[in-house]
Amino acid sequence: MNYKMMGRFVGRILLVEAVFMVPAMLISLWEKEYASVRGFFWGITATVAVAGLLALFCRGVKNKFYAREGLVCVGLSWIVMSLLGAIPFCASGAIPDYIDAFFEIVSGFTTTGASILPTVEDLPKGILYWRSFSHWLGGMGVLVFLLAITSAGRNDSGYTMHLLRAESPGPNVGKLVPRMRQTASILYLLYIVLTVINIIFLLIGRMPLFDAVCTAFGTAGTGGFGIKNDSIAGYSPYIQNVCTVFMLLFGVNFSCYYLLLIRQFKRMFRDEELRMYLGIVVGSTVLIALNLRGFYGTLGETLRHAAFQVASIITTTGFATTDFDLWPGFSKAILLCLMVVGASAGSTGGGFKCGRLLLVIKSLRRSVRRVVHPQRVQVVRSNGQPVDEKILQNTNAYLAAYAIITGVSFLLVSIDGFSITTNFSAVLSCFNNIGPGFEMVGPTCNYGAYSAFSKLVLIVDMLAGRLEIFPILILFSRSTWTRR
Amino acid sequence: MNYKMMGRFVGRILLVEAVFMVPAMLISLWEKEYASVRGFFWGITATVAVAGLLALFCRGVKNKFYAREGLVCVGLSWIVMSLLGAIPFCASGAIPDYIDAFFEIVSGFTTTGASILPTVEDLPKGILYWRSFSHWLGGMGVLVFLLAITSAGRNDSGYTMHLLRAESPGPNVGKLVPRMRQTASILYLLYIVLTVINIIFLLIGRMPLFDAVCTAFGTAGTGGFGIKNDSIAGYSPYIQNVCTVFMLLFGVNFSCYYLLLIRQFKRMFRDEELRMYLGIVVGSTVLIALNLRGFYGTLGETLRHAAFQVASIITTTGFATTDFDLWPGFSKAILLCLMVVGASAGSTGGGFKCGRLLLVIKSLRRSVRRVVHPQRVQVVRSNGQPVDEKILQNTNAYLAAYAIITGVSFLLVSIDGFSITTNFSAVLSCFNNIGPGFEMVGPTCNYGAYSAFSKLVLIVDMLAGRLEIFPILILFSRSTWTRR
Repeated sequence: MNYKMMGRFVGRILLVEAVFMVPAMLISLWEKEYASVRGFFWGITATVAVAGLLALFCRGVKNKFYAREGLVCVGLSWIVMSLLGAIPFCASGAIPDYIDAFFEIVSGFTTTGASILPTVEDLPKGILYWRSFSHWLGGMGVLVFLLAITSAGRNDSGYTMHLLRAESPGPNVGKLVPRMRQTASILYLLYIVLTVINIIFLLIGRMPLFDAVCTAFGTAGTGGFGIKNDSIAGYSPYIQNVCTVFMLLFGVNFSCYYLLLIRQFKRMFRDEELRMYLGIVVGSTVLIALNLRGFYGTLGETLRHAAFQVASIITTTGFATTDFDLWPGFSKAILLCLMVVGASAGSTGGGFKCGRLLLVIKSLRRSVRRVVHPQRVQVVRSNGQPVDEKILQNTNAYLAAYAIITGVSFLLVSIDGFSITTNFSAVLSCFNNIGPGFEMVGPTCNYGAYSAFSKLVLIVDMLAGRLEIFPILILFSRSTWTRR
Repeated sequence: MNYKMMGRFVGRILLVEAVFMVPAMLISLWEKEYASVRGFFWGITATVAVAGLLALFCRGVKNKFYAREGLVCVGLSWIVMSLLGAIPFCASGAIPDYIDAFFEIVSGFTTTGASILPTVEDLPKGILYWRSFSHWLGGMGVLVFLLAITSAGRNDSGYTMHLLRAESPGPNVGKLVPRMRQTASILYLLYIVLTVINIIFLLIGRMPLFDAVCTAFGTAGTGGFGIKNDSIAGYSPYIQNVCTVFMLLFGVNFSCYYLLLIRQFKRMFRDEELRMYLGIVVGSTVLIALNLRGFYGTLGETLRHAAFQVASIITTTGFATTDFDLWPGFSKAILLCLMVVGASAGSTGGGFKCGRLLLVIKSLRRSVRRVVHPQRVQVVRSNGQPVDEKILQNTNAYLAAYAIITGVSFLLVSIDGFSITTNFSAVLSCFNNIGPGFEMVGPTCNYGAYSAFSKLVLIVDMLAGRLEIFPILILFSRSTWTRR
């Protein structure tokens, strides 16, 4: 393993993180929140110090990098980044317990949005900003950002591909353009433009600037940290609808927007994953609205809440306009299933991903057809193109890992003794990077009651969910750390 | 498709079923339960009539049979068998509603043991016998029985293999001996001998003969229909322990007993699935006993209840000695996970199967190792032997089908509006052929409250679970019924 190369990479990522802590510190200064200023000061100092040490010890290495190193590198950098990113919460006194602060920042970076805080409105603005900004940074990925801005990706020596693959969501990462660095830049450009448009739409609805920026960060990263205790419920219907639309937009595969940009409209609208994603959204909204008859005053209100919650859960954002834990059983069952389905591959959303589900279903249909017509050759196609057998195998391995991690986490979290629904929805919600679950972790509640051990389990789940399991699995695999 | 051949097969199976209804009718006569006698009379008449019609219309066909026909044949025969087997319940007035009667007999044949009856002690003895006997017949499989006794399996023309494969549980069906008919005979012989030993052990504990026979049927088939309202709770600790031991014995792969018979002890004890199965049983019992400290009077009582419930759930029997729905969260979480794990392949138990789980884990470990060491050739081994890639692919397809069916069923059953835990555990319990779940379908409750639609969904789940999904999936697949 190329440890030095990995160290250099982690060091660079920490520098990026330190730079991004500066605006948060400035906001704290402006608002005269001196405890927060101290928190960010210590956060920046520690992050820069670790980055410096890594740069010092990892000089002069070759750019030799394999898939294994790429995965380990991504896994490690996310963990280190979170360990240091938790310092401002802790040192400012906003979240005194370090495990809690770690949980909160992992929840931020992984765009989960699960909180251990019973109330957020008392938090200083600098801290609120850092909390919401972590969603934005984690949504598209800090490595992708690094690739977009630094010379690291200039000589496309394969390892950038490994890194991008390891951090981007979805079964098969398409290069938009031949050069990886350009792909990363285009992705971030689209991301920034969409975020700005989102802020503008929120401002039109007379949302205060600070609220608009934080809410847009939470929406863009499909994170879900709110800056109000009642999430989005207190804002106007217009703002809620803007959130619904933008949550759905950020749950679309970004390559679709690239197709829009290069005017390949037909290809975009023929995309099977996009159709499935939109189909599920419309279908679920209609079914929930039917199930909610008489629950709200008007049909419009019913549709607004149904669409908002469907968008929030399928894109794994986790904002709420209403306490959906009070909804009837069928609506809750739909939301639970949407938690697992998740958004599109190549979006900022989490979950199993529509595209992956589509591949699993197609591969299953092939298995059935193989029994019925053993003499025919059966090829799985995606958007008309045959899918590589390796991708199918990996997708099936992903499903296996997904099921096993869900089961084991559920078991471990259950030691705390809460109800089955609480524990199961907590695991699904963290693993799929959503945020709220049902009962004790419902939209009006928080994760504070869990023990430190359960919080660590959920932290691993959040990281595994955001990084699509394999980087974390490989970090914990014995064969990674043994020499041949 | 060879419709005539399939018709002939279904006809023969119905004849076997009709013959097995006769003892139930005789018991009803002996007990002077004339309503039941009438029920069985109509049941036998209808079954023989359908069998006769099938024999009439399906004469003179060639023995040409492919995997597809085998699967469709098994799926169809189980459905027809259940449709006719429900008649005695209905015609005797014991279960007046036909959907309820159908649910009850499917639950019997599939060895689920989920009941729609709030009380069973009032039922006539003939009906109780038929209910319990359906477990015994369904446990090892009626087609396997047919192969064992008739000349159908004499010329081993491949199709017997297809049939046995389709009805026997597990990822890869091993022939014990070269000839399929002999394999089927050995399996049934072992099954009968073990059942008789079970009855003897129960009689030693002073259980009445009728109770002993019915309980042994429920244990042998890993079914779980009791003849008392409180299942096994009212019997002595000795009888409860006998049940624990025999439930576990019937959850072992029967080929292990064959190895015992031919004195290959070493090979038997090295069997990876057997070790995993026993390891899970011991581990779960210890963990639950620790979790239950202070719940029962003595350590002995705690261990007895823990071991009984673990054995009952992992073998998917579903007997109960105590209301485990009142146990603390961690114990319930373990039981929920055991529901999914299930017994060994090649046993009468249901669930995902230990052997299949082992293959999924091994195949996942290979995927991880492939990333870490892409240059090395990675082979998955089972008991030292390399596993065919096709079996691995099928196992992964099975997992996909398993997950999708669980999700869709959960969604459909949720329309009735009950709680998440109720619906989720009901689906898991029926799909894995266990019987009781949690909350509204807990061990002291029943499935009567569900709507007819939900009952039909659960019926499909039970059949899909018992027949290992593919026969039912293929029955519902369009490509099966279209010509090339």
